[in-house]
Amino acid sequence: MNKNALYQLSYGVYVVSTWDKGRATGCTANSAMQITSSPATIAVSINHDNYTNQCIQDTGKFAVSILGENTDPGVIGTFGFYSGKDTDKFDKVKPVVKEYMPVVADACAYIVCEVIDKMETSSHTVFLGKVLDADVLKQDEPMTYAYYHKVIKGKSPKNAPTYQGD
Amino acid sequence: MNKNALYQLSYGVYVVSTWDKGRATGCTANSAMQITSSPATIAVSINHDNYTNQCIQDTGKFAVSILGENTDPGVIGTFGFYSGKDTDKFDKVKPVVKEYMPVVADACAYIVCEVIDKMETSSHTVFLGKVLDADVLKQDEPMTYAYYHKVIKGKSPKNAPTYQGD
Repeated sequence: MNKNALYQLSYGVYVVSTWDKGRATGCTANSAMQITSSPATIAVSINHDNYTNQCIQDTGKFAVSILGENTDPGVIGTFGFYSGKDTDKFDKVKPVVKEYMPVVADACAYIVCEVIDKMETSSHTVFLGKVLDADVLKQDEPMTYAYYHKVIKGKSPKNAPTYQGD
Repeated sequence: MNKNALYQLSYGVYVVSTWDKGRATGCTANSAMQITSSPATIAVSINHDNYTNQCIQDTGKFAVSILGENTDPGVIGTFGFYSGKDTDKFDKVKPVVKEYMPVVADACAYIVCEVIDKMETSSHTVFLGKVLDADVLKQDEPMTYAYYHKVIKGKSPKNAPTYQGD
């Protein structure tokens, strides 16, 4: 198997966020896709080792902030390279509350979901969320994972499915 | 809900293929993502109305052909706008067999999977596949769904989650 083939799948760059007992938290993710159109549902894949995973299981809700090419790249680092267990990520990145959920204010769009199903794998949970609310926050080109690697020259966080080691 | 927010999720352009009683068939898809890294697994979302869905349920295997910017755009039309039930799509598009599965020869990479789990929704099945084989077929930029819309000016097939009507 040539793993380089897997890296040719296309992704965006997202922050998946939720509440941790009243405190906003979240993590960077690139695995999000729309599954059904009516009612609209979205699937996101979150590593078991991400603290956000447990918080989504507890709240039954999550928000996807779609990062744009002009979103501060520091957002990716804050949400991707620290654990929400011991870091207040939304202290460093301005949140805005939409449909009772914390969202990255500097994102180009957001989607708020209620978990309606999930699929467990060895390392990740695939959450299926029914869309409760979604809107565009600013005119920007959505950041692709390829753009992040080529232009921002970012690395994958250790918990990402696309992690390639050091 | 502003559905334009949902269209800001990033996707690639793929052909998901399998066997129909010894005959190769498949359909265009944009919803594919890597879920776990080791063992590598991939999730794809296929509409119940796509004949390919039933064929994947029968064979328990599927291949993802990752289309490139230089892949003949006719591939997307052939696999997206006809039903595999009454059209031999691989008569019009050259296949190559990899790990016993039919793949689009003109793709930039392929991934062959064995179904290990699935999640049903109102309109789509999310298949979780363990990667059996994957390789790069040619040097090309993977086609993003945004590129397909902007440069090739393609429309969504009716069964796509991102279908926006006429």
